[in-house]
Amino acid sequence: MSLQAVLGRIQPLDTALRKQAQTRLDRLTKPLGSLGRLEELAAQYVAITGEMKPNVPRGVVFTFAADHGVTVEGVSAYPREVTPQMVLNFLRGGAGVNVLARHAGVDVRVVDIGVDYEFGTVPGLFDRKIMKGTHNLMVEPAMTRSQAEQSLLVGMELATIAVQEGIGLIGTGEMGIGNTTPSAAITAVMTRRSVADVTGRGTGIDEAGHARKVHVIQTALDRHRPDPADPLDVLAKVGGLEIGGLAGLILGAAAARIPVVLDGFIAGAAALIAVGLQPSCRDYLIASHRSVEEGHRALLDHLSLKPLLDLDLRLGEGTGACLGINLVYAAIKIYTEMATFGEAGVAEKT
Amino acid sequence: MSLQAVLGRIQPLDTALRKQAQTRLDRLTKPLGSLGRLEELAAQYVAITGEMKPNVPRGVVFTFAADHGVTVEGVSAYPREVTPQMVLNFLRGGAGVNVLARHAGVDVRVVDIGVDYEFGTVPGLFDRKIMKGTHNLMVEPAMTRSQAEQSLLVGMELATIAVQEGIGLIGTGEMGIGNTTPSAAITAVMTRRSVADVTGRGTGIDEAGHARKVHVIQTALDRHRPDPADPLDVLAKVGGLEIGGLAGLILGAAAARIPVVLDGFIAGAAALIAVGLQPSCRDYLIASHRSVEEGHRALLDHLSLKPLLDLDLRLGEGTGACLGINLVYAAIKIYTEMATFGEAGVAEKT
Repeated sequence: MSLQAVLGRIQPLDTALRKQAQTRLDRLTKPLGSLGRLEELAAQYVAITGEMKPNVPRGVVFTFAADHGVTVEGVSAYPREVTPQMVLNFLRGGAGVNVLARHAGVDVRVVDIGVDYEFGTVPGLFDRKIMKGTHNLMVEPAMTRSQAEQSLLVGMELATIAVQEGIGLIGTGEMGIGNTTPSAAITAVMTRRSVADVTGRGTGIDEAGHARKVHVIQTALDRHRPDPADPLDVLAKVGGLEIGGLAGLILGAAAARIPVVLDGFIAGAAALIAVGLQPSCRDYLIASHRSVEEGHRALLDHLSLKPLLDLDLRLGEGTGACLGINLVYAAIKIYTEMATFGEAGVAEKT
Repeated sequence: MSLQAVLGRIQPLDTALRKQAQTRLDRLTKPLGSLGRLEELAAQYVAITGEMKPNVPRGVVFTFAADHGVTVEGVSAYPREVTPQMVLNFLRGGAGVNVLARHAGVDVRVVDIGVDYEFGTVPGLFDRKIMKGTHNLMVEPAMTRSQAEQSLLVGMELATIAVQEGIGLIGTGEMGIGNTTPSAAITAVMTRRSVADVTGRGTGIDEAGHARKVHVIQTALDRHRPDPADPLDVLAKVGGLEIGGLAGLILGAAAARIPVVLDGFIAGAAALIAVGLQPSCRDYLIASHRSVEEGHRALLDHLSLKPLLDLDLRLGEGTGACLGINLVYAAIKIYTEMATFGEAGVAEKT
C-alpha cells in the first residue's frame, strides 16, 4: 500500500464511542471518575477499536534498530558497535525490553532497518535493512527522500502484518547508538523550539559532549533547512531509519484502528513525523512515560499527550512502552471485569 | 506479640545491601541508572529483604473495612451502608481492587475490623471486628486508646500470619465510607498543616459538603487536642479502625523485613501513625501513587516518599497498591533477569 493510501485511511476518533464507554465506566462500583487515567485509557481504547466489549488484546513491541552517521561527531557515550550487540541481546532475551515485555505478556519483534553490521541469517530478526546506517547529518542529509519514505513503508508493512495476525496493541521500541541526536533535531524543527531547549544527554554524555551535540544539530539545521511543513523532508535530512520505521508503524496501526503505545523520546520524534503527515493519528497514541531526556516534555506538550508514567527512565528499546501496555491491559480489565452498581447491589451516590 | 516488641524489632535499612544491589544493576546491559525508579525499587527491595538473588514474591493486598461515626455529620457523598455492600463486592471479586489484584497476580484479603453490619459467617472474610464503627469524632474521641491499640495489633497479627505463609510483599487497602475525614484529621495533626490544606472532596462531596468537612475536623481537633508526639492518642481521638489496622500491618511487615506498598491517602494516614510510632519503618514503605485527595501530597512530603504513579486515582480499596506491586515485580525481574555486559558481550561506555 502507498503512503498516501495509508494516510487516507486514518480517521479521527469517534467521540460518540468514547462517551458510550464512559457511560459504562460510570455504572461500575466506584465513585464517578475515581479511577482517573485508567478510565480515560479504557474509553480511548474502546473509541479507537470500536470494540464495546473488548478482550485483552495480544500486544507486540517493535524494536527498530539502526545506526547513525552522526556518531563520528562524538555525540554518544557508547561506541557504535553497541547497536548490533544489543540487537543480539534482544534476540537472546537478555535486554531490559525483553524482561519488561515478558512481564507485560507481550512479544518483542526486532527489526534491522539500518544497522551497520551484517547479521547474516539470525532467527527472529526481521531483516528490513534499507542502508547501513544514515549519513552524518551534520555534513549531509541523513538519507534521501526516497529512503525516508522507504523507512515509513517498512513500519507500515510490519504494522499491517501484525494486525493480520490478530495483534490488537502495538508498542514502539528502538535501538540506535546516537539516536537522541536526530530525535532532538526533529523535535527542534517540528515544535519550533531552540536546539538547546530540546537536546539532552542521551545515554550519558558529559558537559562538553552535550555542547558538541547542540552544535552538531544546529549546524545540520542551518545547513539543510528542513521544512516543518514537509515531515518527510525533516525525516530525510535530520532523521533516522528507526525513527522512520516507527513513524510508519504508527501510521499503519492507526489506519487499522490499533492503539499505539509510545515509548520515550525517540518514539516521540517518530510521532511528530507521523502526526505531521496525518494529524488524526494523534488520537491513536498513548504516551507511556515521560523520559528524563530534555526534549521529551516539549514534544509531548506539542502533541498534547500526557504520559502515564514518570519513572525517570531513559533506556529506550521499548521498556517504557511495555509498562504502558501493562496499564492499558489493566484499564481494559477494569472496563470489562468490574461489577456494576446494579449487579453488586451497592447503593449509589446520594 | 506486644506493640513494644514489634516496634523494637524494626531495624533501619542496611545501606550496604542497597549499594551491593546497585553494583549489580550497574553491570546490566543498559546505561547507568537508565531504568530510573525501577532501579531504585529493586535496590530498596534487596535492602529490605536481604535477598541478593530475590524471587518474585507472593503478594497480598489487605483491604481493611470499617465504619465511621462521623458520617452522621454529612462528610461523605455515599451512604454508610455502602461499606458492607462493598465488602461483599470484594468477596465476590467484582470491585476495582479485585480486578487490579488479579492483573498483578496477588490475592486480596478482606478484613472486617469495624463495619457496622453483622456479616454472620461469610467465606473469605477475616472477622476481626473491634466495634461497629467508631464514634463521631466531632463530638467524642473516635475510640478509646485501648481500642486503637487493638486495631494496631490486628494489623500486626495479619502481617505475621502472611509472612509465616511465605508472603513476601504486602499492599494496603481499605474501605470505609467517611474515612477521608479521619485521614485528613490525622494528616493535619501529624504534618502540622492547617485542616483546610489537607482536606479534600473524598468520593465526591460538593462545595458545601467540603466546608462542613473542614469544620467537623477543626472542631474535633480543637475539642480533643490530639498529641502529635503520641500517635496512639491521635489514632484514638480522630482516627479510624481500618487506619489503625493498616498502621499495624505496616509495623508487622517492617518487623519481618517485608516491603509494604501503600495505596493512597488513607494508607498514607496510617503510615503517619506507624512512622510516628517507629520512624525506621519508613524505609520499608513504597508509595504506589499520588492520589487526587488534597492532603496526600503533604503527607508524602512529610514522609519523604515519592509516589511511583500519578494517575488521578481516588478510589482506595488497594487499587493503587496493586499497580504499585506490579511495578515492584517488574523491578525485581529487571534485577534478576537482565543480562550483564559480560554475559551479553556488549561494549561498555567509553
